[in-house]
Amino acid sequence: MNAPSAPTPPPPPQPSGRRTGRRPGRADTRAEILAAARGEFAERGYEQATVRGIARAAGVDPALVHHYFGSKERVFLAAMEFPVDPSAVVEHVVAGDPAGIGERLARFVLASWEAPEVRERLLAILRSTASSPEMAALFREFAVTILVRRVAPAVPGPDAELRVELAFSQVVGLAMARYVIGVEPVASADPETLVAYLGPTFQRYLTQT
Amino acid sequence: MNAPSAPTPPPPPQPSGRRTGRRPGRADTRAEILAAARGEFAERGYEQATVRGIARAAGVDPALVHHYFGSKERVFLAAMEFPVDPSAVVEHVVAGDPAGIGERLARFVLASWEAPEVRERLLAILRSTASSPEMAALFREFAVTILVRRVAPAVPGPDAELRVELAFSQVVGLAMARYVIGVEPVASADPETLVAYLGPTFQRYLTQT
Repeated sequence: MNAPSAPTPPPPPQPSGRRTGRRPGRADTRAEILAAARGEFAERGYEQATVRGIARAAGVDPALVHHYFGSKERVFLAAMEFPVDPSAVVEHVVAGDPAGIGERLARFVLASWEAPEVRERLLAILRSTASSPEMAALFREFAVTILVRRVAPAVPGPDAELRVELAFSQVVGLAMARYVIGVEPVASADPETLVAYLGPTFQRYLTQT
Repeated sequence: MNAPSAPTPPPPPQPSGRRTGRRPGRADTRAEILAAARGEFAERGYEQATVRGIARAAGVDPALVHHYFGSKERVFLAAMEFPVDPSAVVEHVVAGDPAGIGERLARFVLASWEAPEVRERLLAILRSTASSPEMAALFREFAVTILVRRVAPAVPGPDAELRVELAFSQVVGLAMARYVIGVEPVASADPETLVAYLGPTFQRYLTQT
């Protein structure tokens, strides 16, 4: 996943190689930037982390980070290797008739997880989230800044962020039960059956009806 | 499923080695039986595993397994170091007015997780479930045979087992979001606030109303 070398001061127990020396090859430079980004995001949080700081930690020019990734959010998603575009959640789920938001979310979640290459990557994220404090910190930043803050404004009523996170928790829990723990019958239940049960849960969390 | 010398996952202090030689001390014998039990349950599943097989794998007499633990279920719970008595779920949650089952389950779950020593152990189980196939297999057996099959008969309507597992998945997801990922505001939300939101979710899964 990332480079070896000496452990750096504060960050958690992961070989989060934060080297300062420049690397020659392009693939190496990109990997170097991503390793530095994981360290920065985990340590400072998404809001406090900067492209400049990531560049410094990677020993490259900030322009190179922009060149490779474009924006801080793009660096972040690449650092997490997150396989779903969060904008798609907003576009396909939040936009549209509020009465159908729960079912749209359930359908979106199942469709994403049922795609083998997406599932594989999401599972890797979930597994390392459970075992690595650095990955848990990254995932926390992701959930809050990329998902919750973007979806909550579209959610009416009090406790909007909390309720978005409860929907998120049901997504994570379904993934754990169906794909990680693999408990039957949920593990091999038909996606449409799951949509029928999960849709109303999401609907109530997101619209309180 | 797992090799005797395989390195165990980081979190729990769990030597999953399946040794066959007898151990002298009593503490060692008990630990030996539990290590053998983890292997047997993970490999054969709860139903197929036997006290006799566990004793054989541990190199002890079956009577000794009964002496230490009493029953297969007790061996299993001890092997998982599961900190909550599953009978309590049935007693405190399933029994009683069906109209209150969702709220009772939410309250039971929060009360369990908020007790530090219970939380610590549940987190260890959750973390190792995500990283170790053996622990995932144990947890799967636990969920199905100890929880789902015991609760489902009390749940009316079709897909009873599936719906019990969806409630289970919301419990696991809440634990992931609140305690593992630690996403705010759910991480520090007041338990009663969570009960108010989670209760209706459990209620609908368990009674379809």
